[in-house]
Amino acid sequence: MSEGDSPDLAELAKRRGFFLQSAGAYGGVSGFYTFGPQGASLKDNIENSWRDRFTLQEGNMEIDAPTIMPEPVFEASGHLDGFDDMLVECPECGESHRADHVVEDNTDYEEAEGLGPERVGEIIEEYELVCPTCGTGLAGQAIEDFNLMFETNIGPGSSSPGYLRPETAQGIFVEFPQLAEYARNQLPFGVTQVGRAYRNEISPRKSLLRVREFTQAELELFIDPEDGEGPDLSSVSDVVAPFYGVDQQEDDDSDPLEITVGEAHERGLVADPWIAYYLGVAAEWYESIGVDMSRFRFRQHLSGERAHYAADCWDAEAEVDGDWIELAGFAYRSDYDLSKHDEYSDEDYTIFKQYDEPVTVERPTVDPDMSALGPEFGGAAGDVADALEALAESDPDAFEDAGEDGSVTVDVDGESHEVPVSQTGFAVEEVTESGEHITPHVVEPSLGIDRALYTVLDHCYREDEVDGEERTFLELPPAVAPTTVGVFPLMDRDGLGEHARDVAADLRERGLSVAYDDSGAIGRRYRRQDEVGTPFCVTVDYATIGEAEDASEGAPGTVTVRERDTTAQRRIPVEEVPATLEALRDGELSFSEL
Amino acid sequence: MSEGDSPDLAELAKRRGFFLQSAGAYGGVSGFYTFGPQGASLKDNIENSWRDRFTLQEGNMEIDAPTIMPEPVFEASGHLDGFDDMLVECPECGESHRADHVVEDNTDYEEAEGLGPERVGEIIEEYELVCPTCGTGLAGQAIEDFNLMFETNIGPGSSSPGYLRPETAQGIFVEFPQLAEYARNQLPFGVTQVGRAYRNEISPRKSLLRVREFTQAELELFIDPEDGEGPDLSSVSDVVAPFYGVDQQEDDDSDPLEITVGEAHERGLVADPWIAYYLGVAAEWYESIGVDMSRFRFRQHLSGERAHYAADCWDAEAEVDGDWIELAGFAYRSDYDLSKHDEYSDEDYTIFKQYDEPVTVERPTVDPDMSALGPEFGGAAGDVADALEALAESDPDAFEDAGEDGSVTVDVDGESHEVPVSQTGFAVEEVTESGEHITPHVVEPSLGIDRALYTVLDHCYREDEVDGEERTFLELPPAVAPTTVGVFPLMDRDGLGEHARDVAADLRERGLSVAYDDSGAIGRRYRRQDEVGTPFCVTVDYATIGEAEDASEGAPGTVTVRERDTTAQRRIPVEEVPATLEALRDGELSFSEL
Repeated sequence: MSEGDSPDLAELAKRRGFFLQSAGAYGGVSGFYTFGPQGASLKDNIENSWRDRFTLQEGNMEIDAPTIMPEPVFEASGHLDGFDDMLVECPECGESHRADHVVEDNTDYEEAEGLGPERVGEIIEEYELVCPTCGTGLAGQAIEDFNLMFETNIGPGSSSPGYLRPETAQGIFVEFPQLAEYARNQLPFGVTQVGRAYRNEISPRKSLLRVREFTQAELELFIDPEDGEGPDLSSVSDVVAPFYGVDQQEDDDSDPLEITVGEAHERGLVADPWIAYYLGVAAEWYESIGVDMSRFRFRQHLSGERAHYAADCWDAEAEVDGDWIELAGFAYRSDYDLSKHDEYSDEDYTIFKQYDEPVTVERPTVDPDMSALGPEFGGAAGDVADALEALAESDPDAFEDAGEDGSVTVDVDGESHEVPVSQTGFAVEEVTESGEHITPHVVEPSLGIDRALYTVLDHCYREDEVDGEERTFLELPPAVAPTTVGVFPLMDRDGLGEHARDVAADLRERGLSVAYDDSGAIGRRYRRQDEVGTPFCVTVDYATIGEAEDASEGAPGTVTVRERDTTAQRRIPVEEVPATLEALRDGELSFSEL
Repeated sequence: MSEGDSPDLAELAKRRGFFLQSAGAYGGVSGFYTFGPQGASLKDNIENSWRDRFTLQEGNMEIDAPTIMPEPVFEASGHLDGFDDMLVECPECGESHRADHVVEDNTDYEEAEGLGPERVGEIIEEYELVCPTCGTGLAGQAIEDFNLMFETNIGPGSSSPGYLRPETAQGIFVEFPQLAEYARNQLPFGVTQVGRAYRNEISPRKSLLRVREFTQAELELFIDPEDGEGPDLSSVSDVVAPFYGVDQQEDDDSDPLEITVGEAHERGLVADPWIAYYLGVAAEWYESIGVDMSRFRFRQHLSGERAHYAADCWDAEAEVDGDWIELAGFAYRSDYDLSKHDEYSDEDYTIFKQYDEPVTVERPTVDPDMSALGPEFGGAAGDVADALEALAESDPDAFEDAGEDGSVTVDVDGESHEVPVSQTGFAVEEVTESGEHITPHVVEPSLGIDRALYTVLDHCYREDEVDGEERTFLELPPAVAPTTVGVFPLMDRDGLGEHARDVAADLRERGLSVAYDDSGAIGRRYRRQDEVGTPFCVTVDYATIGEAEDASEGAPGTVTVRERDTTAQRRIPVEEVPATLEALRDGELSFSEL
């Protein structure tokens, strides 16, 4: 059990097939988890729900890039230089620790990462902090920058280093020139990706919350920075959420503001309309997958937390095991990413933005008379011509003021040359321009799927008592539950099994996820489905096949439908099962209406 | 363009957003591709179709394991030692090549990998083979084993090497003890996984067909080797496919046998019934996603191709660009994988198999009288007792024959000791056993998703002529096409755009994938959808809104539905659009019935 785990949840997660530490047979490796059948299905449902909301409904494009990328990409992105954690190694046991965590866990310092390695080293010495593993003093040990990217070599030898991507985003940014083509060069457009990302954490902890391999769902929205209009906020402006702005955080007495997205934007709290829009989308989405909104908030980054290029950044946070953990980040990244790739690569990372109307501008030009300049300046004539062109652009008045009979002075290699204006071919032309090249800005909603899954499990975990027995169940929304319907024959005899299998097949035909179970007492089968969050169960019994001993057992041709959360049961005709269960799953019908 | 690419397809793949070489702005890296919006959607549809057929319909369990696994896993699996290709480096330009490919490409030798590095080196010398890049002779250059796993380090330092998994399978095998629990220890059960796998190819080529990062879909089926019954073949026994057995391959005049799966199994050509079953499932599945079955076959591995532990193995192959490429492998892996992990790890990789009836067996036991043995043998008494136990198990007759008054002889550390039978406590007990521990065997259908996608694009690529103009289109089955319906307003004015957007929204509501396009001439919009394989288009025009100038343009309230393959058009009432298009997609209605 790692620190911070919710013990009951971790035990249930392994026993019921949600997740377990990988390769446990070989002692396991910290930070790597395997999703069992229930977890893989829940994860898949969460991913598809995200895809539906953030890609399809928004008309964004999804791509799928490799997880290994070559070094130049991360030189440009800044990850090669700056994606570090502070490492301190114990001189006695050799264990590696995050130096800032050692400080945070044992002093009153918060956010020790921002203090820098030197100050962290001093604090370790001042407080005489020790190795969390063996208790040996860490004073005087070097605090080193450790790059969090997993490194490997592409092909034989070490001439072509590659890195496992620390975020899916670079796979989008690097292909921007082609993606802009797919978007027919029209801003705004959004590109999404769902896939693995990797961080070689020094000491992973907290179960699924800080792992070395995880799944991200990212949206990179490319916008025109001069387009003040932004998106239509009307569809999300009434969404209420707790907004924990910088001001509220800096005032000890302030709680997050429980206001609508529309108000948060109008007040200027969430300044960028695209950020505001996606905060609204995200709040609705997190609620739809089972996050408890009373344990959820949006928190603005303090100025020290933000990357230097980010104008604003908000995190979605959830309370789990008593801590507030980051579920997602919503950053206004300006033109940082595209400018960097434009600078480092051979490609053009701009968009040609057409003006509404062509614009006519005056453009000074020169057309030097080389037959005169050549004899005069010899080998330097070409440089003189270049200098004239530069001068015309930077200071056209020099030509105008000198007049046709005058001359202008240019410097070439520290030497001044005077050139008659008549030999420069100076002129001011009128040019009509239809548009200009601009570098789009980026708004990035970036979500962690594993953390969403862990939070959903934690927030949906329930314990109650049914018929005097303790029961644990997961109150998962039907839209993400690994199984929608459990189908049981009361017993596997007298044809009940065949009937139940037919019911299961009909439900699968409708696209519902079904678990068929005929083993053990019916109460135990209900509990099994409760524990994995199956919202409904259907039981086929003797009444179903018209062989009930007593009319009180149920009308002929009916089955029992049971609801997980209330354990209430209703009888409905067997032929209505598929349509009824589909309506229950889609929320078009509530159980109490049966 | 890499060798072997189909030029038109590669160009279309990039231009229309199916796939492109990754990080092209930085010169790209061989063997890494990014799926654009169309490709990512096609890939997702193929994966989900596989999941539906091989996981859900079969009642198998899907898991999701990490892509990085620790070294001990690959020590056990054999990948660390044996997952090599033959590497030869050019002494002049330094380029690395696969030595066996250099031989195959320039001599009549086929399958040079099987010849071993020494012989390959000799052939390079005999034939005076040269570097494919610069033409320098390669004679005398060392032929080295190059391990194809990408290596990295987990955590700081190099004490914990990790590898990017070369197949998804190990993530399943290693968790077998827990997975068996989920299956309630009942054989057979199947576990699937869809995810990334990695091979650090020496010189990747052929576009998507030999890449360094790819997606696999694997099923590991755990079966009881003593259960002769196998699966019910009836659902696939009538599936016809070309079977290219060892005998047909070794006889130059033989073609593959075009027979049913049932016949292939009855004849003993496909001996294992589980392999036969999944060949049938796979043939139907490949056809459903758009593979041309006249360019498809099942080929049995020759004895030299098979791993030593594999009793039988068949590949699914498709003809692409004139070559037969491997799409999938179906291997009977015996108990190799589970036995290895059982041997290398601390866990138990067996299943307790209950007998139908408890079995009573006689078991000889000893219960040595230590109060007699102690004084007699001193410090060696314990060893003597152990030796007696071993003797009782290996040769109980020694005790029986000696009789109660006789003695038996045991060797301890090379010394013989005689022990009276009366002091050994020898007895034969009757023990009732309810079952035994067995190591399940594994049947593995393993498919490559990228190769399936490339084959589908190649097999569905069509060129024809429409109204005197050349047209290219993709005849993708509606079930996997990235977009199901293109929706166009004839023009974006007079309210046509609003109407068309409503039609698009209604279709999306039904779960159909829709592309809305209002830009350019209608013919150009049709061509765009043709090129990405959209099977149907719906056009909203003046008749739709009851403002046609002429009744011949169409009845009021109708739209035009157009079929990709024939370019035929029909008018249907706008309110019937969602149900009609859903029925067309699901194959419940054919276009000619409209």
